[in-house]
Parts: sequence; C-alpha cells; structure tokens
Amino acid sequence: MTRAITLRSRPVGWPTEDNFELVEVELPPLREGQILVRNLFMSVDPYMRGRMNEGESYVPPFEVGEPLQGGAVGEVVESRAPEFEIGDTVLHNYGWREHAVMDASEAQKITPLPGVPLSAYLGVLGMPGLTAYVGLLDIAAFKEGDAVFVSGAAGAVGSVAGQIARLKGASRVVGSAGSETKVRYVIDKLGFDDAFCYKANGPVVQQLRRAVPDGIDVYFDNVGGEHLEAAIEVSRRYGRTAMCGAISTYNDPEPPPGPRNLFQVIAKRLTLRGFIVNDHADRMPDMIKEIGQWLQERRITFEETVVEGLENAPAAFLGMLRGENLGKMIVRLV
Amino acid sequence: MTRAITLRSRPVGWPTEDNFELVEVELPPLREGQILVRNLFMSVDPYMRGRMNEGESYVPPFEVGEPLQGGAVGEVVESRAPEFEIGDTVLHNYGWREHAVMDASEAQKITPLPGVPLSAYLGVLGMPGLTAYVGLLDIAAFKEGDAVFVSGAAGAVGSVAGQIARLKGASRVVGSAGSETKVRYVIDKLGFDDAFCYKANGPVVQQLRRAVPDGIDVYFDNVGGEHLEAAIEVSRRYGRTAMCGAISTYNDPEPPPGPRNLFQVIAKRLTLRGFIVNDHADRMPDMIKEIGQWLQERRITFEETVVEGLENAPAAFLGMLRGENLGKMIVRLV
Repeated sequence: MTRAITLRSRPVGWPTEDNFELVEVELPPLREGQILVRNLFMSVDPYMRGRMNEGESYVPPFEVGEPLQGGAVGEVVESRAPEFEIGDTVLHNYGWREHAVMDASEAQKITPLPGVPLSAYLGVLGMPGLTAYVGLLDIAAFKEGDAVFVSGAAGAVGSVAGQIARLKGASRVVGSAGSETKVRYVIDKLGFDDAFCYKANGPVVQQLRRAVPDGIDVYFDNVGGEHLEAAIEVSRRYGRTAMCGAISTYNDPEPPPGPRNLFQVIAKRLTLRGFIVNDHADRMPDMIKEIGQWLQERRITFEETVVEGLENAPAAFLGMLRGENLGKMIVRLV
Repeated sequence: MTRAITLRSRPVGWPTEDNFELVEVELPPLREGQILVRNLFMSVDPYMRGRMNEGESYVPPFEVGEPLQGGAVGEVVESRAPEFEIGDTVLHNYGWREHAVMDASEAQKITPLPGVPLSAYLGVLGMPGLTAYVGLLDIAAFKEGDAVFVSGAAGAVGSVAGQIARLKGASRVVGSAGSETKVRYVIDKLGFDDAFCYKANGPVVQQLRRAVPDGIDVYFDNVGGEHLEAAIEVSRRYGRTAMCGAISTYNDPEPPPGPRNLFQVIAKRLTLRGFIVNDHADRMPDMIKEIGQWLQERRITFEETVVEGLENAPAAFLGMLRGENLGKMIVRLV
C-alpha cells in the first residue's frame, strides 16, 4: 500500500482542497522490467491546472478518482530491471504519491551534481529549466544584445529564463512579479536590470515602459492576458514572443478576450509562437550541460519553496496558482 | 497643372467622400535626374486606410491637404534622366494624381508581359502579388501537403495566395469572402477546393470547420477579428498564420479585443507572424518569375474591378473597403 492524491472532482474556476483526496492505494507486484520507486520530491506546476479540466489541454486530462501525475524524483527501492539498482536516483512522472511502480523506460536515471540538491531536477535542471532554455533560445530566438521581458520572473521558469538572457548577453532584462518581495528577489538575487510588481503601481504597460523605455525585442510570456498586450505595445520591430503559459487565465471559467493591439503584430512585424516543452526533449542534454555548468560556477541561482508531506501537496498546488511561491514550488515527501 | 486627390480631413471610423478633395496642383519643372510621368492606372489598397490616421500605422501618415500616395503605373512623357526614355512604362508610388514629377530612383521600369495588362503590375505582379507570395511561402512557411485557409479570398492578395497554395501542392485550399458571387468566383475561377460567405450561414468557425473538417496548417489572414479566432480554433498542431492585414477592424474607432482562444496558440504550438511587404522587396524577382510564368501558362488567373477616372478614386477606395471589388480594385486614369 502507498498513499496518493487523487482528483476527487474537476474544479470549475479556482480549485479548492475539496477537489483533491488523500487515499491509500494498492501497489501492484513488480513485473519483469519494472522498478519500485520511493518518491523524495514531487513537483506542482501551472500546467496541471489544465489537465484537471475535461479534454481541454494539450496533454490528456487527469481522470477523476485516479491519482494525479507529475514530475517526481525518487530512489529505486526494488528492481526487476537490469538498468536500475537499488539506491539509484530517478526522475519520472509518477508524482502525487509516495511510492510508484513503473516500467524502467518511464524512469530516467540522474547523477546528482555536487552541491546541487536533487529537487533541482524538478526545477532549474528539469522541466522548468528546459522550458526556459528552449523558450528563450529556440522559440523566441534570443540573440546577444536583445532587450528581454520575462513575466512571472520569480517563478520556476521565469527566474531561469531571465538569468539565461543575462548570461548570454541581453542588453537589458526586466521582469514582472506578484509582490514587492519577489521584485526585490528578481533584481537582487537573479540579477535582472529591473522588475515591477504587476499587482500595484498601475497598469502593466506603464510599468513595463518605465522599466524598458527603449522597448523590448523578446517577451517570455508565462502569464498571458494584460501582460501580453503590454508586451506587444512595448515591442520593437521584429520582436518575438515565446508563449509559454497563461497562468493569469487558467482559472477563468470563460477564456478572456485577447489583446486589443493585435494589429501591431502586423505593423511591427512581430512573431508570437506557442510551445510545449514536451516537444523539445532533444534539447535536455544541452540544457543540463549549460545550466549545470553555470550552477557549478555559481553564475546562476535558484530558489525553492518547499512544502512538507504528501498531505500538503494540494495546498502547495493551490498556493503556487496564487503565486505564494518564490522560485520552484516543491513538495518534500520523505 | 495636373489633377490630384488630397486628404481633406482625417476620417474617424468609416471614411466618406468628404474626407477627399479633387484639386488642381502645380507641376514643378523637371530637375536633372527627374522624369514626368502620365499615370495610366492607380491602386487603392486597404493599408491606405491606416495612413489616413495620425501616426498610427507602419508607414508615415498621409498629410492633410496634400495629395495621397499609392502604387501607380504610368508612361514617361518627359525625361531628364538617362535611365528613362519617353514612352517607357514605370511603376511608382505617386498615385492619386494624373501626372507626377519624380526622381528616376523613385520609378521602376517595367517590361510588359505578352497578354498581361499593365494594371497587373498593381495587382498579381505587383505589391499584392508579392504580399501573397512572401506571406504564404516565407512568413507562413507553406510546404507541400499543407491545408490552407485564406480570408478575403476574392481580394487582390487573397486570390493570389490561394492560387499559389494550389499550384504548390496544398492538400486543400479554402477561402472566405463577403458575398455568394465572390464565393462562386473563388471556387469556380480560382480553383479553391471550397469557400464560404462569412456574412451569411452562421459563425465563421462553423463554416470553416465544415469547409476543412481535418483542420488547417496555414492561415493567410487578411481580415483579422472573428476570422483569426476561427482559424486558431481550427488549426492543427504547429499551424502557422501569416498576419497580413485586418481589414475588418480598420474602421473601428477603438480596436476590438483579440481572439479569446489564444491559449490554443500554446496548446497547439502555433506561430502567428505579422509582416509588411515593404521589407521583402528582395523577393520581387522570384515572385515576378514564378507568377509571370504561371500567367503565361494560364495556370493562374486574376480579376480586376476597374473604376474610370481620378474623380472616382475616392469612391473606388470606399467601395474596396466595403468589399465591392472582385479581385484587385483599380482606377483607370486615361
């Protein structure tokens, strides 16, 4: 037996704790080629909100009554697969539970980097890191000298995207975040040139213009809505937006209207491009190499907000949607 | 002296004849390096509406009290430039007038193709043709086998874009137009696989889905608004939209909100890219070569709606904005 969190019911609008249930589930016996993993850390991510709806998102919806899924790091405690030994550390997608049985092909062995916690494989060295890397470099085609705007700049993805831009020679990197504490973190710890709190001090477009008076070349969009309209407004000619997420809209029962200034996409010859990190697994080795190196050299930094215990995973997820995390929101399971 | 149409006042919302004035203007004496051109045909195009506003568009605004500008084909009647002889046919940007004095560098000599009227250099072989060519092939990165949707399919740009897609091996080409007559033209004459009238028979998204049940890979957007939302809805993964124009919104005093389904740009990994044909003059020779060849082989066709006389140019422009033209709207000046 192990403990898991199931989707009790599909949320309408903002999810609540009632949409989740902590249950005991049977662990099937290991078949040949399978491993049993004890999870150490699990991830809660914005994209999971989409999977809680019925058939609306880009990955299959979670099933009501079944354990949720998501990134997790664990250790192999039983193995009937020659590739894995007891004690190996693995990254896999059976989060939201304390133990999981899986085929060897569903687990990826990781070699811990000195001085880097295992949880980093759910953040800066994992899916969020790859999202930032691919979104900035491949989708937005960032090049040295570009002025870059990152929304959700204190979050798991945004914090990495902005630092990559800085390390690769952006002329200016600015970010938005949801509190003054986060704004300070983004400037003081992550090394952005400027940042602003989008919940205070006036419309996003005004604050963005103040932060980057000469305009932007690249917008890394994690939030959608008003931010996207502001970024289009402040874009220079040939500007490029990587559309990565739209967390500001995920809990709207009806999707909000898009930017009113789409004509500027024509007038300024802009490119808006959506992407899903799953398509870009081939870039994982490049990302691990570059970001791993920067981590070793302490040129890139990251923060985690850690919640303890599987029973608190729903609260961690809800807090992340409300923006209560600084950096990556992690649930520690052991 | 010559006759010209000036901008009497800036339109607010839909322009009217009162925004224009027919005047007599002095022709300056020819300086060294200049030519005097008698205009034969002039163009009226959607983008001109943007130039009638104050500093809002991507080209400098027209000046109140000054002659309007735009594409025109004329013949050289006086020359103080060695590159031009009397009788040469030239394409230039001093439309909206019967005669014009210009520097030789502002005129482009054209060699008429057998069987192709000179006015084609304002349409299928001119700026609209280049817009279609670049938008489809370079901006939307069309490739053989793509399913293509073109809005404004009976217009100067759309009619060419759809035919290029057909000639280059689209799996399916569908279009929208503003009347049943245009729909018949698009299917019967231009060879689209299907077309629908967006003003009747229900929402654009429903009609589009009926016309192309398996979805689209490329959307060539001439109209913006509801069409763009419908195209995003019906796009397949990795779909690409060339944002060329938004004629449905040009006369709105306030820009309308954008599509409500922008999240699908992420979920489906779509690319929306705006462009301005002026940036792509380097593709003119390729376009002339390919489309010229197709014209000679009668594999591509075009239609013109011809209005007679400079005094009727404002009416032609207004009619074009209302969609009264089939194919390119042309004003014959001689």
